[in-house]
Amino acid sequence: MDNKRKNKDFNPYNCGVTHFLNKVGGKWKVLVIHGINNGYNRFSLLQKAIPHISKQMLINQLKELVEDKIIERTEFVQIPPRVEYHISAYGKTLLPVILTIQEWGLKDMKA
Amino acid sequence: MDNKRKNKDFNPYNCGVTHFLNKVGGKWKVLVIHGINNGYNRFSLLQKAIPHISKQMLINQLKELVEDKIIERTEFVQIPPRVEYHISAYGKTLLPVILTIQEWGLKDMKA
Repeated sequence: MDNKRKNKDFNPYNCGVTHFLNKVGGKWKVLVIHGINNGYNRFSLLQKAIPHISKQMLINQLKELVEDKIIERTEFVQIPPRVEYHISAYGKTLLPVILTIQEWGLKDMKA
Repeated sequence: MDNKRKNKDFNPYNCGVTHFLNKVGGKWKVLVIHGINNGYNRFSLLQKAIPHISKQMLINQLKELVEDKIIERTEFVQIPPRVEYHISAYGKTLLPVILTIQEWGLKDMKA
């Protein structure tokens, strides 16, 4: 995991776009955040919301998002055990950006 | 190339975020568009602006962005031949989204 993320802070020109992509770039993270924000806050719900993501990829993305303090993982000690994710206060700063992304997508789909 | 992009239109729930990510998701495309928009409009200039992208990856990203009509490729017949890229009218619809991304990045870098 560490090895996979070795370039995650590489930003030689202090570029804002690079910084964003280092945090949540790639094919999945923005979608995972968007899913959790829309109530798909458990692993099985996220798998339904994002049917084309593999199980291992979803595990990795959630782990990295937790590491980066963008989402938080809460484990409920009950039988059967239950784990929920929610967006952290820091992660919520991304929501207006994701809204802009969504608006572009919806508009472009109609075009 | 076709094989690599086989899922690029997969969007079972007509999700705006998925649509955006299908178009320009991944680690590089937004950065390539941002570079071209800031005057790094030739292959060698983009390599300097994005030093951590491999040559083959940059070739692929440019090819896909041209295929998707987000950028345009102009070949100047001269010696030595020269190729320039610029953002298409369609691609320009992405610039406000990229600006929002950049603003988040710059703000988060200061935090």
